Amino acid sequence: MRTIDWVGGAVEIIDQTILPERLEVRRLTTVAELVEAVRTLAVRGAPALGVAGAMGVALAAREHSPGPGRDAAVREIGAARPTAVNLAAGVRRAAARLTDGPDAVLAEALAVRDEEIASSAAMAARGADLVSEWCGPAPRLLTHCNTGALAAVTGGTALAVVTELHRRGALGGVVASETRPLLQGARLTAWELARAGVPYRVAVDAAGPYLVARGEVDAVVVGADRICANGDVVNKIGTYAHALGAARAGIPFLVVAPESTVDSTTASGADVPIEDRDPAEVLGYRGAVTAPDGAAAVNPAFDVTPADLVTAIVTDRRVIGPGTPVIGPGPAHETP
Amino acid sequence: MRTIDWVGGAVEIIDQTILPERLEVRRLTTVAELVEAVRTLAVRGAPALGVAGAMGVALAAREHSPGPGRDAAVREIGAARPTAVNLAAGVRRAAARLTDGPDAVLAEALAVRDEEIASSAAMAARGADLVSEWCGPAPRLLTHCNTGALAAVTGGTALAVVTELHRRGALGGVVASETRPLLQGARLTAWELARAGVPYRVAVDAAGPYLVARGEVDAVVVGADRICANGDVVNKIGTYAHALGAARAGIPFLVVAPESTVDSTTASGADVPIEDRDPAEVLGYRGAVTAPDGAAAVNPAFDVTPADLVTAIVTDRRVIGPGTPVIGPGPAHETP
Repeated sequence: MRTIDWVGGAVEIIDQTILPERLEVRRLTTVAELVEAVRTLAVRGAPALGVAGAMGVALAAREHSPGPGRDAAVREIGAARPTAVNLAAGVRRAAARLTDGPDAVLAEALAVRDEEIASSAAMAARGADLVSEWCGPAPRLLTHCNTGALAAVTGGTALAVVTELHRRGALGGVVASETRPLLQGARLTAWELARAGVPYRVAVDAAGPYLVARGEVDAVVVGADRICANGDVVNKIGTYAHALGAARAGIPFLVVAPESTVDSTTASGADVPIEDRDPAEVLGYRGAVTAPDGAAAVNPAFDVTPADLVTAIVTDRRVIGPGTPVIGPGPAHETP
Repeated sequence: MRTIDWVGGAVEIIDQTILPERLEVRRLTTVAELVEAVRTLAVRGAPALGVAGAMGVALAAREHSPGPGRDAAVREIGAARPTAVNLAAGVRRAAARLTDGPDAVLAEALAVRDEEIASSAAMAARGADLVSEWCGPAPRLLTHCNTGALAAVTGGTALAVVTELHRRGALGGVVASETRPLLQGARLTAWELARAGVPYRVAVDAAGPYLVARGEVDAVVVGADRICANGDVVNKIGTYAHALGAARAGIPFLVVAPESTVDSTTASGADVPIEDRDPAEVLGYRGAVTAPDGAAAVNPAFDVTPADLVTAIVTDRRVIGPGTPVIGPGPAHETP
């Protein structure tokens, strides 16, 4: 099963807003439908957004003749969410083929998809090797948000490392941080881990640093929405707190992301547009009251983890370790 | 209005499990009812728990003749929740008067109540002075959980400082961290702030350190469930992450608590029993699904903030500042 794919002339996604209650595939036949699915997080996760962006341009190429209407549609896809670099990058990559016609655009979108599938496998193996090297035979991990197959096409990023360790019989357990306000950890990560037969516990986000401090976690493993040139990591809100907790306790903080998430054109986290989402996400949950009528809220969807708190970044091609630049002559910690 | 009081031979509490939907007073006429109210957090907050403990013994003194039944009832009250020192201390204080008869026990419980009311006023003034001194005329604060009147009898601890600053026209704003899993921040603190006319925003817990990092917060102000002899602060889960964020950003982290929360007999946070509550609190919220069926969870209700992350502790009698021992010959930063 793929989280996002091109099927019979349209984009099909697993609708992530209704998991874990039901597993439903939603078919997106127009740019407008795709943009709405991106904005509402029916499809989400940096690698999946890259594929969605590219496939959105493939839809635009079929929906519009060349001209201002098509250009506007392409721009709208790229701007549907601002923080993850993959979305705009996927759009740009597919849009570069627009002059060659719709089939060429689609071929590029399918290439983006296939590359993300291959990346997941490479990251899972390399990340699992690294965690085993650092933490021994049965590491207990903490992860945040959802970085499994649902955030990619198959496999995933950080969660692919967790499931790979489990597959190897080399996992001591995993805590899934629930990830308020939209609970991608409790809803999606827990659902994926249960399906994979991986023993897990859900915790509120605020418990992460304390579980680390009381010795229940050997390493924190997270994904990324954008990795800046200086090594700052932009990821789901709450990541920074887990990184602070890991640093204080002296345990590794590992970021797992494909090269497509590395944005060498953005100098640091301070230069990344952080999406502030609808306060209503914070003030309620699926009909349950969480605050009084009329309450105000602030809802940043991402945060910035400064590079000095990151032990290493595993990509599909390399390990960016302490003192190894994100860009430059080649990483000292590169593994073949 | 008092959060907890003795009215016509019974304990009356504002039932905090149904706020903010409805404001209801619940009458507790037996020890069993009081213990259930404490366990379910219908009454909560360290100062309020101290009063509940003492008034619970007053109920026991009326319900039982001297003997093993009464002793067991008293022990059950003190053990209803393990972390906040006030509950057991309130029980011990009232129980010391049992040999003098029910009226003497009740007099002691009312004294505990009156002392908490006086403490709140003293802490609010001293804490507001300190925040103004540190942060200037319009500090923007972040607070966690509920530390207002609902956590005490009237006034409160950290939230009393916030409302006192507002009353003085010396508050720039406040972020109320929602405090999963039971959302005391979103439900109770927001409700109190709205009633007091204080402008506020709710945020998910995980956003705290990031809002601090991006310059939206001038100081973090929290309460405490137990302050250890070495200055470690045990408080609602999530406090530690906010402290890490404050320390990283170099802004003050202020703890506000009555002397009744200072436990000089417990050496450090490592010696405090941390309550692990029902995983069901994490896995759902008022009927809303937050995780797949069969999910497991870990649910520590409190965490430990090491003393070195605490800028100062304001009590009703003193300011315990950097390098000032919790116990000892007298604090260097004491204010008259």
